[in-house]
Amino acid sequence: MVMTRVEGAAELAFADWMSAVQLRTERALERVLPSAENAPARLHDAMRYAVLGGGKRVRPLLVHAAGALAGASPARLDPIACAVELIHGYSLVHDDLPCMDDDELRRGKPTCHVEYDEATALLVGDALQSLAFQVLAEQSVSDNASDQLDMVRMLAQAAGSRGMAGGQAIDLESVGLTLSPEELEFMHIRKTGALIRASVLMGARCGEEMDAEDLARLDRFAKCAGLLFQVVDDILDCESSTATLGKTAGKDRERNKPTYVTVLGTARTSEFAQNLRDEARKALLPFGEAAHRLRELARFIIDRKY
Amino acid sequence: MVMTRVEGAAELAFADWMSAVQLRTERALERVLPSAENAPARLHDAMRYAVLGGGKRVRPLLVHAAGALAGASPARLDPIACAVELIHGYSLVHDDLPCMDDDELRRGKPTCHVEYDEATALLVGDALQSLAFQVLAEQSVSDNASDQLDMVRMLAQAAGSRGMAGGQAIDLESVGLTLSPEELEFMHIRKTGALIRASVLMGARCGEEMDAEDLARLDRFAKCAGLLFQVVDDILDCESSTATLGKTAGKDRERNKPTYVTVLGTARTSEFAQNLRDEARKALLPFGEAAHRLRELARFIIDRKY
Repeated sequence: MVMTRVEGAAELAFADWMSAVQLRTERALERVLPSAENAPARLHDAMRYAVLGGGKRVRPLLVHAAGALAGASPARLDPIACAVELIHGYSLVHDDLPCMDDDELRRGKPTCHVEYDEATALLVGDALQSLAFQVLAEQSVSDNASDQLDMVRMLAQAAGSRGMAGGQAIDLESVGLTLSPEELEFMHIRKTGALIRASVLMGARCGEEMDAEDLARLDRFAKCAGLLFQVVDDILDCESSTATLGKTAGKDRERNKPTYVTVLGTARTSEFAQNLRDEARKALLPFGEAAHRLRELARFIIDRKY
Repeated sequence: MVMTRVEGAAELAFADWMSAVQLRTERALERVLPSAENAPARLHDAMRYAVLGGGKRVRPLLVHAAGALAGASPARLDPIACAVELIHGYSLVHDDLPCMDDDELRRGKPTCHVEYDEATALLVGDALQSLAFQVLAEQSVSDNASDQLDMVRMLAQAAGSRGMAGGQAIDLESVGLTLSPEELEFMHIRKTGALIRASVLMGARCGEEMDAEDLARLDRFAKCAGLLFQVVDDILDCESSTATLGKTAGKDRERNKPTYVTVLGTARTSEFAQNLRDEARKALLPFGEAAHRLRELARFIIDRKY
């Protein structure tokens, strides 16, 4: 059958849908990031450098996929996608700093503190975090201010000391230690999982109201997807080249950081990834066809090469 | 006349009112900061170290003084006071880092990165910022979610690249430069002024609705108070001892940073401070007695010795 007209995003092939979401996220980020022509110019320039023109935009993809499941309009989802990506972007800039992971390459480019300087990179991360909350509070993501306030709360929790920043602190403390798989999971559920879960739940929150059971299913999916993302990251860090990753490969091993590969070994790590993928798919079953973007994203996360 | 019963905060002498606000802010901060018994323990411990048990709490005092003017209940104002103080606390921790001002003493104690380590201090600042937005979005500061969302927006704008973080970036770029008084003001209106204005306007927002004219008056007061705070800071940095300040004195001069004292000279700086104070008082005149806490605070800011 020849399709003469695209009826809507639901009919796009996954790769095309992904490109479309990545493109609209890029454009939305371009709009919300302050122009480098406004003072302080260097800071604004560095903020744009750190966020624009790169990245897989996994979190915005999750926002839009979960939003699609809940029937939210993509225009409403854009500010949410921006907010989670700005938080993610700030965390990368700070994680790359010399006092943290001391990385010089990110998304195939010099890291922010290498391209600019450490003080600027510190302020870039700080200002990106503020901007995330500003975008979420300013833009119309819901007709209901109370729902929107809930999203601010969700994002703040996901970013904070019991979420992403806390996971990063545990990661730092774990260097050189032997962790159990449970301890590793405790860390990753915070370090990468919290923001991924927030992306899914905020996207869903933007659409029609869901009952508690469906929300719990989505949360289970998001938890598995978040861990899956980290497990695949660990495998890639171990097996891929710096050129493919766009960031320095093998750094975790070199730094003596516990990873799924070092804790479980390669074979059991792959098995764990398959289990997580199965569990993620199972959580989505009751949603049927409506969840197809989330399902495709989980496959993308496990199959990705960078 | 012997007062047998305290009718309300309005009747307390300024010093007692100030102590009462400082105490209730300390208690509110103790409640919202995660317990150091919860993982990640070291991060939570460092967050508490950085925020609790010190500081003049100027911003919470402004929140409560402006809230009193608008008839807001102190209990409603506590989360707002916490939020602005958490943003202020995060900015101090990051400003003290080696790549920024490289300070070892703050509020009479070793700075966060000296007491803990740089990576922890970085994460402390990051997590304190998230917590500020979490507190503001979670707690009941208004019966109207839309007002509360407005406050999130105000705080995010005040903290971000066109507010506090932007002012800090301009400050960094100014080292070694000769600034005009206008350029210095442009920096300070952002670096310290933005959060001080947000404190006043959020506190007022928490009470009865104000008309645009009254809000403009309050904003003018806040702008003057913020600059006044900075001008006095510059005088103190120049004239006081490290022991009195609880932070390293004379650092700005040593670092070749432009200050009001270096740009205007001591005499004109004192004159400028008096002018700002007069303008601040004038802005409050139409409020009459209702503004007495704000008036007293302006006097406190100009008379302070640390």
